[in-house]
Amino acid sequence: MIVQLKKNASEEQVTAIADQMSALGYKTTRVATGNGSYLVGIGSKEFDIRKLGHMEGVADIHRVSDAYKLVSRKWKVERTAIDLGDGVVIGNGDLSLMAGPCSIESEEQVAATLAHLRENNVRIMRGGVFKPRSSPYAFRGLGIEGLKMWHEQAKKAGVKIISEVMQVSQIDEMVDYVDIFQVGARNTQNFNLLDALGKAGKPVMIKRGISGTIEELLYSAEYVFSAGNEQLILCERGIRTYERASRNTLDINAIPILREKSHLPVVADPSHGIGIREHVEPVALAAIVAGADGIIYETHQSPEEAASDGQQTLNFGESARLIEKARKVAALRQTF
Amino acid sequence: MIVQLKKNASEEQVTAIADQMSALGYKTTRVATGNGSYLVGIGSKEFDIRKLGHMEGVADIHRVSDAYKLVSRKWKVERTAIDLGDGVVIGNGDLSLMAGPCSIESEEQVAATLAHLRENNVRIMRGGVFKPRSSPYAFRGLGIEGLKMWHEQAKKAGVKIISEVMQVSQIDEMVDYVDIFQVGARNTQNFNLLDALGKAGKPVMIKRGISGTIEELLYSAEYVFSAGNEQLILCERGIRTYERASRNTLDINAIPILREKSHLPVVADPSHGIGIREHVEPVALAAIVAGADGIIYETHQSPEEAASDGQQTLNFGESARLIEKARKVAALRQTF
Amino acid sequence: MIVQLKKNASEEQVTAIADQMSALGYKTTRVATGNGSYLVGIGSKEFDIRKLGHMEGVADIHRVSDAYKLVSRKWKVERTAIDLGDGVVIGNGDLSLMAGPCSIESEEQVAATLAHLRENNVRIMRGGVFKPRSSPYAFRGLGIEGLKMWHEQAKKAGVKIISEVMQVSQIDEMVDYVDIFQVGARNTQNFNLLDALGKAGKPVMIKRGISGTIEELLYSAEYVFSAGNEQLILCERGIRTYERASRNTLDINAIPILREKSHLPVVADPSHGIGIREHVEPVALAAIVAGADGIIYETHQSPEEAASDGQQTLNFGESARLIEKARKVAALRQTF
Amino acid sequence: MIVQLKKNASEEQVTAIADQMSALGYKTTRVATGNGSYLVGIGSKEFDIRKLGHMEGVADIHRVSDAYKLVSRKWKVERTAIDLGDGVVIGNGDLSLMAGPCSIESEEQVAATLAHLRENNVRIMRGGVFKPRSSPYAFRGLGIEGLKMWHEQAKKAGVKIISEVMQVSQIDEMVDYVDIFQVGARNTQNFNLLDALGKAGKPVMIKRGISGTIEELLYSAEYVFSAGNEQLILCERGIRTYERASRNTLDINAIPILREKSHLPVVADPSHGIGIREHVEPVALAAIVAGADGIIYETHQSPEEAASDGQQTLNFGESARLIEKARKVAALRQTF
Repeated sequence: MIVQLKKNASEEQVTAIADQMSALGYKTTRVATGNGSYLVGIGSKEFDIRKLGHMEGVADIHRVSDAYKLVSRKWKVERTAIDLGDGVVIGNGDLSLMAGPCSIESEEQVAATLAHLRENNVRIMRGGVFKPRSSPYAFRGLGIEGLKMWHEQAKKAGVKIISEVMQVSQIDEMVDYVDIFQVGARNTQNFNLLDALGKAGKPVMIKRGISGTIEELLYSAEYVFSAGNEQLILCERGIRTYERASRNTLDINAIPILREKSHLPVVADPSHGIGIREHVEPVALAAIVAGADGIIYETHQSPEEAASDGQQTLNFGESARLIEKARKVAALRQTF
Repeated sequence: MIVQLKKNASEEQVTAIADQMSALGYKTTRVATGNGSYLVGIGSKEFDIRKLGHMEGVADIHRVSDAYKLVSRKWKVERTAIDLGDGVVIGNGDLSLMAGPCSIESEEQVAATLAHLRENNVRIMRGGVFKPRSSPYAFRGLGIEGLKMWHEQAKKAGVKIISEVMQVSQIDEMVDYVDIFQVGARNTQNFNLLDALGKAGKPVMIKRGISGTIEELLYSAEYVFSAGNEQLILCERGIRTYERASRNTLDINAIPILREKSHLPVVADPSHGIGIREHVEPVALAAIVAGADGIIYETHQSPEEAASDGQQTLNFGESARLIEKARKVAALRQTF
Repeated sequence: MIVQLKKNASEEQVTAIADQMSALGYKTTRVATGNGSYLVGIGSKEFDIRKLGHMEGVADIHRVSDAYKLVSRKWKVERTAIDLGDGVVIGNGDLSLMAGPCSIESEEQVAATLAHLRENNVRIMRGGVFKPRSSPYAFRGLGIEGLKMWHEQAKKAGVKIISEVMQVSQIDEMVDYVDIFQVGARNTQNFNLLDALGKAGKPVMIKRGISGTIEELLYSAEYVFSAGNEQLILCERGIRTYERASRNTLDINAIPILREKSHLPVVADPSHGIGIREHVEPVALAAIVAGADGIIYETHQSPEEAASDGQQTLNFGESARLIEKARKVAALRQTF
Repeated sequence: MIVQLKKNASEEQVTAIADQMSALGYKTTRVATGNGSYLVGIGSKEFDIRKLGHMEGVADIHRVSDAYKLVSRKWKVERTAIDLGDGVVIGNGDLSLMAGPCSIESEEQVAATLAHLRENNVRIMRGGVFKPRSSPYAFRGLGIEGLKMWHEQAKKAGVKIISEVMQVSQIDEMVDYVDIFQVGARNTQNFNLLDALGKAGKPVMIKRGISGTIEELLYSAEYVFSAGNEQLILCERGIRTYERASRNTLDINAIPILREKSHLPVVADPSHGIGIREHVEPVALAAIVAGADGIIYETHQSPEEAASDGQQTLNFGESARLIEKARKVAALRQTF
């Protein structure tokens, strides 16, 4: 059960509502985000909804049978849009494109990428400065100084930044230099990180775990929402299966399922989803026609020389062709 | 190595070529299909290709590094098209649609389905008369009499038939009444069945195994081809993963990968691929934009009353909307 | 529901019972095996059991909530033992060992293997004469002549034979020369083959599918049982997972679970279960201590020269050491 | 390549060796643990080993072809043992038992558990005070105060503590109250946490990821080792597969494979590995006979009332029977 509270509900009113929920057999969590205030009740007792409905401070009451609550579409049918400012919005029905290298490598690389994005009117750049790597001996990224350099250039270019945060202590370091925090596939169930991002005050995109279920992804989003942040984006990036012909198996089914179960925007990552440069385009287009609010993919001026993930990275020519086709597919989708 | 033989190559010439291949260290299999004759050589010895190239009876020689040979695109870059007659072709660049119920149930059901297909200009009807069922106590289909009844109506309607064959002894029974034999996901590695279908003289669509790899699907096709039948269609129908929110996980990656590795047409089955009626449409459109030559899906005049698979079956209204959108997506794809 | 019929129940009595079951809302299948006669009722209606219990011809009535019935332990708590004659029994609490090459290759190979088995008092030899192979160009076995040669030697040595049957037409060919028919992992859901083995009159060992569930394995056994053959053995042989360090993942959990759910004997195949010669022994011992009624594994006088599966095949020295340890572990288990 | 340094190697000598390694084309990382000092070289250039071997400060040089280095058995064949003090050692050939509840709940519960362990001479108690939970609304543990209470009792009882650490900031809080830090399955690739545990000065047990590969587990251990801590234990706890009859699939194969590839001790968690109380025992015994250095399992005085994981938790009677059998299996194994 979710009780939406009135904007002007007093502390006494909220306490009284919470007490009543407890009396009805519900374990209650209070949630306040930038957008609203809620009391989430966990339980399954039957009761007369009028016992809560007439109380002062209550704006609305929703029964939500899903185990996750705030991210469920059962109480919020209209889709959530994330406004990054300067006219950049994710989840408003248009197609959002996010592109850039796996790793931020140098000023020249950032400049070249930004120029490519501006030419093609792409408003969000992806890139990693803290890189989670299986081997401790691999390149781990330029760190916070790399992010600052990137941010300076991106701001001038009017391009927004999405970048991965790997641990709680990085949130404060990064918060002034990113527009979206990305939670990587290895951290989807790093619950402390999710909790802390609930207080971060910036949008968060959560990647599905390497072998995470759809339900686990929704639970992870519930962590951030219930900790105070409802600016959330879900990302399908491929799951681990027995198939070895591709790096991961992009779960195309997840796109309509996530959009049915949640009001949050859904983005697909075809680069990790297949892991083969030649086939990133068809997989990206598939995700769009299946309903994705956006795609996030890897591009680099010279993929053969990229510090990481070169085998799944498009060059700028390939990227431009993908952008053009992606917009045509999105335009067709909007006529359906 | 594949040696294509000249149409008029004599028995002596073929023997001489095969002997020379053996002398070069290759294990040789002779293959004759309706379209051509081949000698397939398995081995990896280096040799001077002129030792074979100048022999009488040789039309062409191809080195194929894949472990499967005849189905590989490494020797046949142009795509194979399957001509079912009466203007119905699969794999010629157009979108092929195959629709119908999971099980053939009655004359009325067949008539209603055929009427729906004709109205929407769909030329191939799917349906099962021999049903593989996990439980021995479940409905196992109408059998050969059901197929004959269906065939009579379909012929009048000018609609082609695709239906599953489960064992060798059914091939002769069915051959006059089907246009395409379907090999089901549980029989993808039923090698005796594949061998026998090599002699069947009708096109064969092979579904990927329930947890079959892409490579295993290609090997299964190689069985049929090497036994004498090159009228083959590959079908991605979803794989078994840990995810429980959908029946299977349609492997969208498999579509571009299969089309890269093989010259055979690739069809997707979104009904089994996701198993959720409401989401069959977006998954079907995704497969098309990713390059599928066709889609095969389940439709029934009254899915709630279908003898099997009702939860993933479209009614005729949903089917008509899917057809319309599918053709628009295919038309856009052709402009790329 | 399973109704056990009296040995001397008349045709009229059985018909009357079946009619009464139908009247109670149960779809009824009549099953007669070498051991007994049953009426299996599929349905879930509540009824007064006395309506059936007092009828002539009824020996016993069991409610079985599982979807599979005859193989369930819910009606038959005592464990089934399979008697192969000459004192060779599987499932009587002792440890059964079955060993031999992947493929039967030659008279010499058979003789050497039989000598090894006799020396170590192993009474069942495994080996393939019809080999299911992913590639049509790979060695497919010596066929029925190989089986006859093997049978002649084995009979003299007092050793029983287990060998894979791949299709219905092979059953009659093989039946006089095998003691146990093996259904391979690619044929676990070849329902026509299972049906036909129900009439074969010889014990059948069913391997779990390459990515088959435990429940599917039990359903496959139900096919054979309901078609008339209750001499059944279940085999855990490893499942397909994402892990690449081993050929398959032997599902050790399946052993206690299968023994809880079914009264049939359970055998493990550590050779396929891990696929790495050096580690076959620990996995075999693990399966035994976890409750397996037997193990089936690959051994060859010279694994490096085996026609197939050499990388997972023990030589005779390794095999002898495994046998000795296996018996010690089984002896300890019996004290628990 | 791993260069072991002499205890008394001077700073100048180490720098000279590192410079020479760089000159030979190796990217070099310096590692100092409580046990020794190393230079790890990543690269694959061929060179004359005498160019390093005669340098001052070099104790030994090992070529290690694995991608992980310090945890590989290729340079350290003898098995690593972890000494917790007071005669409690993991990895010395004896069987280590670690048991206790999923969550620490109360003083009474801790006291009862410790009494049970003492009675059965089990020297290590497991329990969670920081609980990673999929849902943000679930019980998240007693926190650091719970750990202090537990530590006080355990110390008096002479029992060691293993407990999960979820984030970097908890390390300092916990370090005085645990004997082994546990890294949970959701944090196996939380690389910041692994790095920080490299400085923790206490042993670390790393659980395999929910769908982590064996290689990824070894890489995760390499993180901790290369950051300065070689007191490491690997834990197989079941992987995520398509099978739904058990919670996870304990990968019995992983036990011999990990012991072949690494010198670190290997522990199995049968409670999570199967997730079914009745079957924890056979799976535990299987892991032991397959070579596990220890097992860690869940026990509670009243599993039905446990705050979490009750369905896979043994009561004290079941636990005592498991312990007895486990020791008999371990004793038998030692005779092999």
